[in-house]
Amino acid sequence: MNQTTTYRLYHHPLDPPSRRVRLALAEKGVACDLVLEKPWAFSPDLPTLNPAMQLPVLVIEEGDENNVLSDGQAICEYLDETHAASSLTGKNPMMRAEMRRLVRWFDDKFNAEVSMPLINEKAVKRLRGAGQPDSLVIRSACQNIRGHLDYIAWLTERRNWLAGDVITFADLAAGAHLSVIDYMGDVPWDQHVLAKEWYARLKSRPAFRGILGDHIAGFPPPKHYADLDF
Amino acid sequence: MNQTTTYRLYHHPLDPPSRRVRLALAEKGVACDLVLEKPWAFSPDLPTLNPAMQLPVLVIEEGDENNVLSDGQAICEYLDETHAASSLTGKNPMMRAEMRRLVRWFDDKFNAEVSMPLINEKAVKRLRGAGQPDSLVIRSACQNIRGHLDYIAWLTERRNWLAGDVITFADLAAGAHLSVIDYMGDVPWDQHVLAKEWYARLKSRPAFRGILGDHIAGFPPPKHYADLDF
Repeated sequence: MNQTTTYRLYHHPLDPPSRRVRLALAEKGVACDLVLEKPWAFSPDLPTLNPAMQLPVLVIEEGDENNVLSDGQAICEYLDETHAASSLTGKNPMMRAEMRRLVRWFDDKFNAEVSMPLINEKAVKRLRGAGQPDSLVIRSACQNIRGHLDYIAWLTERRNWLAGDVITFADLAAGAHLSVIDYMGDVPWDQHVLAKEWYARLKSRPAFRGILGDHIAGFPPPKHYADLDF
Repeated sequence: MNQTTTYRLYHHPLDPPSRRVRLALAEKGVACDLVLEKPWAFSPDLPTLNPAMQLPVLVIEEGDENNVLSDGQAICEYLDETHAASSLTGKNPMMRAEMRRLVRWFDDKFNAEVSMPLINEKAVKRLRGAGQPDSLVIRSACQNIRGHLDYIAWLTERRNWLAGDVITFADLAAGAHLSVIDYMGDVPWDQHVLAKEWYARLKSRPAFRGILGDHIAGFPPPKHYADLDF
């Protein structure tokens, strides 16, 4: 008996782990309803769906059963296990360990040094109407991003993709973070040609189309954001 | 041809992810050399082994090949994939997603609210000789731990172990954090009997013996720390 399975993702377009899950769903060809949640003003549903009070949350309805998953990487690995074709975890245990190390690199280190300060200062303050951005914090984050772009260049020169010779969740994690920063116009692509070459390959994948179509009212992206020839 | 594989773990006894990997190695019956690294004064080896500058790091030597793994959960999942007997990831995709969600709960939320402040104030300051502990920070962390012990009780009442009916890395992650706090004498076990019952089951496993034998010079554990009848 084939039951219909429906997927519903609670997300925000400027939340990098939410973007990673959207990319994973698109790579796997899984149709999914999107529910917008503002991280600075969650709906009353959110604490019940995820006591950690974080996006993304994926709700899977199958007949009478309702399963709730949270944590970006937990959701991604679940999607990979249940949709095994064209795996995004890597080809062997060592590559999978490298993929998982790099996912944490971007979700912890890149997030703390680049994404979180830029998103808070440039986007959240504006969307909430909560004061002026702190230019010192922005300058420091824009300096920090350079080391990470160099690291991406160093990795892709040796391996083609970040964790090895095939695309993995490490590329989706890095691409999700960078696409949010790119939405705010803060990635110095022209001074980092190797990282740009890797991002161009990622950006041209059909799975990227959804996030390139993002448009936040009152906070539009720069022109090059959705341009594949940026 | 059987080559000898040797494992070397760079760790610190008060670093919860290091403890989780030691528990995983012991559960899997993998012998491993331990190299002590102080997180507040890393040896010159560490930046080369892990550019994220974090413990733990696992070096696997197999013949001429030398593989370096970092990030606690990446290492644990690698050990599980390469030593498949008595898996610690969970029995199906949904339980594995729950395991991964809970590992992040403890490594992110519990760590920020309980482990990190207590370890920094009570242990690191003392071991470095770097000032007096901040009693306000300690009081707040000791308050925060109660909600987490209630959450453990809530989960284990419904599931036996944290992520389901079998032990997983979620239990090792939680046990690793709590064993560090217990080393400092700050877990109010007597007021949280269900969490205590779960921890007693974990503590009595042979794999726990190694960490119960930890003894840091100048910072000894309380008497009940290694006692199975605490």
